[in-house]
Amino acid sequence: MSAVGVSLERIDGAEKIAGRAVYAGDLRLPGMAYAKVLRSTVPHARIRRIDCAKARAMPGVLGVLTRDNLHVASNSFGAYVRDQQILAGEKVRYIGDMVAAVAAADRGSAAAAVELIDVDYEELPAVYTVEDALVKNAPLVHETLENRKDPGYGRGGKHIVHDHSNICFHFRHERGDVEDGFLDSDQIFEDSFHFPSAQHYPMEPHVCVAQFEGEVLTVWSATQSPFPVRQELARIFGLPFSAVRVIVPSVGGGYGAKSGIKTEGIAACLSRMIGRPVKLAFGADETFKTICQPRAKVTIKTGVKKDGTFVARHCEVYLNGGAYANSGPSVTEKAGYRAHGPYRIPHLLTNAYSVYTNTVPGGAFRGFGGPQVAFAYETHIDMIAERLGIDPFEIRMKNLLDKGESFSSGDTPIDCDLKAGLKSVAQAIGWDARPNGQQNSGSIKRGIGIATAMKDGGGTNKPANAAVTIFNDGSVLLSTGSVEVGQGMRTAFLQVVAEELSVPTERVRVAALDTHYTPFDKGTNASSATSIMGQAVQKAARDARRQFLEAASAVLKAPVEEIRLENGMAMYGAQKLGFREVMQRHFRDTEGEIWGRGYFKIGKDENVPLGYPSPFWEIGFGAAEVEVDVETGEVKVLRYVSLTDAGKMINPLQCHAQDEGAAVFGLGQALFEDLSYQDGQLLNSSLIDYRLPTFADVPSTFTTFIMEGGGGPGPYGAKGMGEGGILPVAPAVGNAVFAATGKRLQMLKVSPL
Amino acid sequence: MSAVGVSLERIDGAEKIAGRAVYAGDLRLPGMAYAKVLRSTVPHARIRRIDCAKARAMPGVLGVLTRDNLHVASNSFGAYVRDQQILAGEKVRYIGDMVAAVAAADRGSAAAAVELIDVDYEELPAVYTVEDALVKNAPLVHETLENRKDPGYGRGGKHIVHDHSNICFHFRHERGDVEDGFLDSDQIFEDSFHFPSAQHYPMEPHVCVAQFEGEVLTVWSATQSPFPVRQELARIFGLPFSAVRVIVPSVGGGYGAKSGIKTEGIAACLSRMIGRPVKLAFGADETFKTICQPRAKVTIKTGVKKDGTFVARHCEVYLNGGAYANSGPSVTEKAGYRAHGPYRIPHLLTNAYSVYTNTVPGGAFRGFGGPQVAFAYETHIDMIAERLGIDPFEIRMKNLLDKGESFSSGDTPIDCDLKAGLKSVAQAIGWDARPNGQQNSGSIKRGIGIATAMKDGGGTNKPANAAVTIFNDGSVLLSTGSVEVGQGMRTAFLQVVAEELSVPTERVRVAALDTHYTPFDKGTNASSATSIMGQAVQKAARDARRQFLEAASAVLKAPVEEIRLENGMAMYGAQKLGFREVMQRHFRDTEGEIWGRGYFKIGKDENVPLGYPSPFWEIGFGAAEVEVDVETGEVKVLRYVSLTDAGKMINPLQCHAQDEGAAVFGLGQALFEDLSYQDGQLLNSSLIDYRLPTFADVPSTFTTFIMEGGGGPGPYGAKGMGEGGILPVAPAVGNAVFAATGKRLQMLKVSPL
Repeated sequence: MSAVGVSLERIDGAEKIAGRAVYAGDLRLPGMAYAKVLRSTVPHARIRRIDCAKARAMPGVLGVLTRDNLHVASNSFGAYVRDQQILAGEKVRYIGDMVAAVAAADRGSAAAAVELIDVDYEELPAVYTVEDALVKNAPLVHETLENRKDPGYGRGGKHIVHDHSNICFHFRHERGDVEDGFLDSDQIFEDSFHFPSAQHYPMEPHVCVAQFEGEVLTVWSATQSPFPVRQELARIFGLPFSAVRVIVPSVGGGYGAKSGIKTEGIAACLSRMIGRPVKLAFGADETFKTICQPRAKVTIKTGVKKDGTFVARHCEVYLNGGAYANSGPSVTEKAGYRAHGPYRIPHLLTNAYSVYTNTVPGGAFRGFGGPQVAFAYETHIDMIAERLGIDPFEIRMKNLLDKGESFSSGDTPIDCDLKAGLKSVAQAIGWDARPNGQQNSGSIKRGIGIATAMKDGGGTNKPANAAVTIFNDGSVLLSTGSVEVGQGMRTAFLQVVAEELSVPTERVRVAALDTHYTPFDKGTNASSATSIMGQAVQKAARDARRQFLEAASAVLKAPVEEIRLENGMAMYGAQKLGFREVMQRHFRDTEGEIWGRGYFKIGKDENVPLGYPSPFWEIGFGAAEVEVDVETGEVKVLRYVSLTDAGKMINPLQCHAQDEGAAVFGLGQALFEDLSYQDGQLLNSSLIDYRLPTFADVPSTFTTFIMEGGGGPGPYGAKGMGEGGILPVAPAVGNAVFAATGKRLQMLKVSPL
Repeated sequence: MSAVGVSLERIDGAEKIAGRAVYAGDLRLPGMAYAKVLRSTVPHARIRRIDCAKARAMPGVLGVLTRDNLHVASNSFGAYVRDQQILAGEKVRYIGDMVAAVAAADRGSAAAAVELIDVDYEELPAVYTVEDALVKNAPLVHETLENRKDPGYGRGGKHIVHDHSNICFHFRHERGDVEDGFLDSDQIFEDSFHFPSAQHYPMEPHVCVAQFEGEVLTVWSATQSPFPVRQELARIFGLPFSAVRVIVPSVGGGYGAKSGIKTEGIAACLSRMIGRPVKLAFGADETFKTICQPRAKVTIKTGVKKDGTFVARHCEVYLNGGAYANSGPSVTEKAGYRAHGPYRIPHLLTNAYSVYTNTVPGGAFRGFGGPQVAFAYETHIDMIAERLGIDPFEIRMKNLLDKGESFSSGDTPIDCDLKAGLKSVAQAIGWDARPNGQQNSGSIKRGIGIATAMKDGGGTNKPANAAVTIFNDGSVLLSTGSVEVGQGMRTAFLQVVAEELSVPTERVRVAALDTHYTPFDKGTNASSATSIMGQAVQKAARDARRQFLEAASAVLKAPVEEIRLENGMAMYGAQKLGFREVMQRHFRDTEGEIWGRGYFKIGKDENVPLGYPSPFWEIGFGAAEVEVDVETGEVKVLRYVSLTDAGKMINPLQCHAQDEGAAVFGLGQALFEDLSYQDGQLLNSSLIDYRLPTFADVPSTFTTFIMEGGGGPGPYGAKGMGEGGILPVAPAVGNAVFAATGKRLQMLKVSPL
């Protein structure tokens, strides 16, 4: 292969580095107004009155929006439960909830006017933790729940609805008989774990520009899910899809934060109200108050044989979903489904709950529930090993699933060699010569820990469409609904198209994303771009290739099957024609274009607990060597080894970069990321108070291994990746800290700093 | 029909009236620079040296572009002859020719810096008129002509190349034997006529924003021909089509001026040079110096029988093409082909020449050569009538072609009843009771004149593609390459799509035009949108309808042929489903889209003089009553009647508006429009010196008749229109002036004011 498997330079790299790439925040439209949002200062309250008189009177103010003048067909939205409002209706549910918005001629006036809005709250008792939210007669964050979607699970999976409680979503997953399993076991161990709530912190906060222009609402948005945003906006304003156009400029990172509506509804309402384009750009602090990774409490009870063989496992997963469901239900389902880990366990029962509280809403976050449960089951397995006096490496080797074995009855068999993966990680970190507990200078102790984790791939129930155009000059344009959020998808797809058409990569371009033109896609998430959309892209390229070969056969007067395509040439025997010549001779003049279309979707399967088979298995194995100062408690990660399976690397450089990025995300959560609250008030909504990993935190020895088992559904056997690397970091570090100090970490964050 | 034939309000009307429509000139991009062009101050010269040092040194200046730093793959462009340069190379060829360009942080600096550029010219002798340009050894405007396109005519038509002369293009059209014809004639009359050079004066001058962004050059341009512009830019910069994106925002009129590259090449070069988006907006005065309607000298010699029957006609047409060919050759060919008028003439010989001079380039202009020759043959026929003592109405009735008769051997038969048209015009103006020569108060005399003219329809050799998407909610989007230049094409096409799909018009939208997505089209000109693109639009809608019916038949479990579509519902027996329900039940969820495609192109035909049959015949009949002050020479048009044939009116209101607009264009040229030069210097390049018709010039009685003979190739029998109305105005007014005063006008303009 000439285009695939090559570390092609990112096509959007140069412009981004040079600052030439245009982001939604860069857009200026004639007459554009600037919006600012007023956020609730109380965690839970009924809104008695909103007085905007002073704000409206302020010079420069063009419009003030509240629940009283929204004039929308529907004020409620939400991917799984329509429990969120464009602007607060009857109640506010957390500090930061959006109450009103001002559009003004300049940013300053908008910010000043917002301060002049007077909201009369009737405060209500609030709940902040899962524990408080679940006590009997706890105050309800939502009295009623509109339009709760039933995911429609297959055998073994179940969605249980709890009304009049703060349980937003409950997923149950069962196989075998866990009670019998415990009776069969020699020993039973139960441990509980707490995982922090992290902020995605994309470099670009939420931002959009909305414009009602005559017949059409156009929104330029930094979103990961332009088509769902179109769908929600159409519903909110009672417009046909053909009258809603979502354009995605360059996006500065998403990590799950940019799924679904964020700024778009408010900006669109304001634009319609004042008859001008409106920009709404959140500050970093507002992004902290918009969406986060759900905090988790996980309890795992495992029955084992003396030799460490797993027999039965019971998992209880509680996610603090915050004030609105968002994609929390889906995260909860995935956390629950993955809660027992990549191990052979005959008897299993998992209950996973998403719980409403009066805190920042939790939702999709790189790893999608995986990091929370992986920390739990990978620390738990180390604790079991220690109690049984078995080597943590050995107990994993004993219980890890084999390639081809089933993770969950009916689901896709394991598609790569987990044990081989674990061996190479252990070898790379020097497992056999580990310095555990070894005292260095003074109070510094060292230790090594490992962890093996896995998540099912996303993008199920996701129809993917792609279009490949061959222009009359033989150049090629790919149009796909996947969003370039920095993961390098545009470059990888370009390579696939070039490979399928046998043209040089520089002849191929990727079109900008515009829901008026781009074929439908459901959103860019769950490592599904390469694995799911990649198949639509490949099919579209093959459809275009087929049509091109027909053109070539007409021009070369040769049977289609005897024409070879190579490096932008069509060849038949001694004849050789460039793509341009073929197109222009076949279509004459400048008129001819070839339109290739590709479609892919995974079908429903009742035999699978989640109702859809996992398209692939995304693994994340890790090993860490840490240094702990037993006096200060400071933890340094000296060396880190990450391993995942790409199936096939379309662009090796980008694959390694994705895995490194994921691992660094994991380090942040293991060491110091956590949103702290006091009486519902978020205390660290800025980088001054909230600590993100910096280059100084990157281990001096940092290795990423990427297996290429070829077992993926994507082009040339590619699997999704970019999330696996985050899963094992926290437990690997925690296990290393235990090895160094004998202190077991069951509640992150590790670092006292 | 529910959607077609209705005077639907223009979909872009409200936003344009409210000033909300976004034009290229409204765009602001981050870091955008402003460009200004330096134009030649001499009519004809070799450029010795261009010194930009002072300009480059000026604060605010970001880049200065000249022939010396263009760095393009090709500096020459042109639709028919590649004789024009992005910036002057070796020579400048008229006062206003573009020599250099500056990009600066603000408009002011750009304008000031341009003044600091010092150009060293070696002046050359110049030619301004056709007469001067054709004398032996006249100075050559172009020494050599690269890439002259051979139009490849059919029988009777011919393209003759004259090298080493100022003849840019020569079209010859012959049938029968004109010399024999003259021998057969009782009398022979020869007259010469001069038609002025007019300026299109679209309300929006030429403007674009160009941006080289990483891999792709994007140009937002006020152009009538985005795809040819893409093609030229790709060639100029050596880029694949997939790397050139031309987006067309709202356009403020074109009338032919906005065909082909104008500002785009310079703005793109500057953007690449300085790494920023660049806006280049011409002032109105610069538009005057960019393109105009070619001045014409037409000599017609006609042989007739005593009773006024035409026997033979010899036409000589000379168009002053100015310094560059532009679309002049095509205008020349059309002027030549139409030079003998809509009459039965057995023997014919026409030679039409486009001649280079050192004046503003001439090119496409509403009417496309038609007004020049119509003025000649319609004044000529009145002169013949007078000499033979025949009524001008009768002589036309005697010689006009019948419906079904051939205008030119092999070409499409006449598709409407010309005589019926002439009768209604004569009747409406009150021909039989005409007040010719009647003396009113003092020096005021009144008279009535008529004229009948015809042009072949354009859009031949024009492939038209269209796409119709039915979204999952049942709403519809049309994507077409035709440009909305104010003619109302978006509204008319929307009506066609709604009609074909049987959905309410408010469910249909028309997508913005973007060459990365919009199916290929060759340009919006020659009244071809409704008649040619309209067929592609109708086919695309029918393709979408077919696919939708299949979906409906699957959902309703009914045979396709038994399903009826009505007002957005699919019906089978008693069952009734909305489009949304059909789409969502058929495709499930939100994923399904239907893509309909339509393609239309007129095939080549060797039996037709121009190589392609005319898709339809666009007629323009007119009658004018004037009042002439024989002392001051002031001419007032009191009443005007215009008649054309729409075949079928898709939107009657818009059809009448188009015909009125065309007639008013004609009035301007008849009465006072003319570009005047002194030593090659254009004297009236502003509305202070150049007189355009105002509402005060519109006749107090102004009637437009539109026939609906249904003979057109477009949807439901529609023909193209919007140009016909301009053709007869000048001769009708001239003939009326003669009727009033006995003074014959063979050289426009009529008014001394």
